[in-house]
Amino acid sequence: MPPRYEVIGVEGIREVRPGDGVADLILAAAEAQGTAIRADDLLVVGQKIVSKAEGRLVRLADVTPSPVATAMATALGRDARLVEVILRESRRVVRMDKGVLIVETHHGWICANAGVEQSNVDLGTVALLPADSDRSARQLRDRVRTLTGADVGVIIADTFGRPWREGLTNIAIGVAGVAPLRSYLGEHDPAGHTLQATILAVADELAGAAELVMGKATGIPVAIVRGADPSWLRESSVRTEIIRPPSEDLFR
Amino acid sequence: MPPRYEVIGVEGIREVRPGDGVADLILAAAEAQGTAIRADDLLVVGQKIVSKAEGRLVRLADVTPSPVATAMATALGRDARLVEVILRESRRVVRMDKGVLIVETHHGWICANAGVEQSNVDLGTVALLPADSDRSARQLRDRVRTLTGADVGVIIADTFGRPWREGLTNIAIGVAGVAPLRSYLGEHDPAGHTLQATILAVADELAGAAELVMGKATGIPVAIVRGADPSWLRESSVRTEIIRPPSEDLFR
Repeated sequence: MPPRYEVIGVEGIREVRPGDGVADLILAAAEAQGTAIRADDLLVVGQKIVSKAEGRLVRLADVTPSPVATAMATALGRDARLVEVILRESRRVVRMDKGVLIVETHHGWICANAGVEQSNVDLGTVALLPADSDRSARQLRDRVRTLTGADVGVIIADTFGRPWREGLTNIAIGVAGVAPLRSYLGEHDPAGHTLQATILAVADELAGAAELVMGKATGIPVAIVRGADPSWLRESSVRTEIIRPPSEDLFR
Repeated sequence: MPPRYEVIGVEGIREVRPGDGVADLILAAAEAQGTAIRADDLLVVGQKIVSKAEGRLVRLADVTPSPVATAMATALGRDARLVEVILRESRRVVRMDKGVLIVETHHGWICANAGVEQSNVDLGTVALLPADSDRSARQLRDRVRTLTGADVGVIIADTFGRPWREGLTNIAIGVAGVAPLRSYLGEHDPAGHTLQATILAVADELAGAAELVMGKATGIPVAIVRGADPSWLRESSVRTEIIRPPSEDLFR
C-alpha cells in the first residue's frame, strides 16, 4: 500500500473571543461537518484564533508610541502605534527597509512585524502571536484528550515570509505530539549511500499542507491531517528544535 | 462540503537512467499500485529523477578543479572536484562559512551547494539541478497528456534549507499548470478588512505536502496530490513568479 494522507479544512468555526475554548470549538465544528476528530489526527490551527482566545489583542487607541517608534514609523510610512506594538514584541530589528520591518521576536522568530497583524481582528485592534505557542499546542492537545479520549497531534501555525522567494508559507510556531524535524542521518539511500545533512522540517511541511485548505478569506482557521505517518509524531517543541542557534546561522 | 485533498506516494519507480521517460515510469507505477493518474491530479516530482533522466550527471573523476575551487575546498573541508562542480553551477557565492557553501545558481536559486548532490546517484557521480525545471515540468505534463489524455499539473521539487530555521523543506523549482503564488490582494477577511501583503506560495506548500510521503530513504520520488482546488492551477512558471528580484530582497 502506498503511503497516503488527507487534509481536511474545518468550516463553521465562529468568531473567537478572549476566553473561548478553541479545542471545544474545533471539535464541535469538525463533528458538525461529518469529520469528527479521532485518534492520531493532526490538528493544524492558525495562530490567530489561538491568540484571540488567549486575549493577545491590543487596541491601538491604548498605545502611546515612544519617540523611537515614531521615528521608525515615519521612515516606514506606518502607524506609529503599530510600530510601538511590534517593537515591544521584539528583541532585535533584523532589517528595516522598503516599508518592511523584520525583527527577531522574544520567542526567537525572525519575521515581518513580529507577527503582529490587523487582518481578521476588529478594526483598531491588532493580534500578537501567542506568548508560548508550544504551550498553547499542549493545552489544546490536552483538552482534546479530556473531551474525547483521543490522542491527537497539534501544530500552531502562522504564515511567514522568507528571503529570496516570493510568497508566504505556513509554518509551525508551536507543536504538541508532532515532530518538528525528521532526521535521516545514518539511514541509506537505495544506492547505498549514507544520507547526510538530511533533516526535514516535517511540522513546517504539515503546516504548509494545511494552509492549502485554510485560506485567509474563507474563514477556515483549522485543518485536520488524517493518516499521519508515525514518524511525524513525537513529543517535542518547536522552540527547542526549529530555531537555529544564532552561532550557527549565516544570515543574521 | 469542507475543502479536502489527498496526497499519495508513488512506489515502485525503478532506478532512472539518462534518456528514460519519467512520465512513462510514473504512469506505470501509479497504475500498478492502483492509483492511476487522472485529470486534475498534481504530480510532485523530485528533482533527482528528472536530473538523471536528462543526463545532468557529472563524474567527479572527470573534473579538474581550478585553483579557486581547490582553495575553497580546503577552507570548507570538502572535495575540490565537488566544489568545482558547484562553482560551475553558480553565479555568485552568497555565504561560505562553517563548512557550508551557499550560492546563487545560474537559475537564480539561493541554496547550499548549488543543489549539487551525491545521494541517490552512483558513487563518484553527482547530480546537478535540471537546466530549466519549468521546461522539464512542461515536458512531463505534455507527455502525460499525450499518453493518457489527462490534463495534470506538475511540480518539480527539491529540498532546500533556509535561514533561521532548522531542517530542509521541499519547494518548487519548476511548475507546469500549477500556480506558484495565490494572491488574496483585494479580497476581504470575515471582519471586512481588505487583505494586504497576503500572497501564499502555493506551489511550495504543495511540494512540502508531497515530501511527507516521498522520503529520501524509501525510494518514493513522486507524489500525487488529488483533489486540487482550482485556485492552485494556472499557467505560469516558477522562474517568473517565485524568485524575488534582487532589488527587493533584504537578505542578499
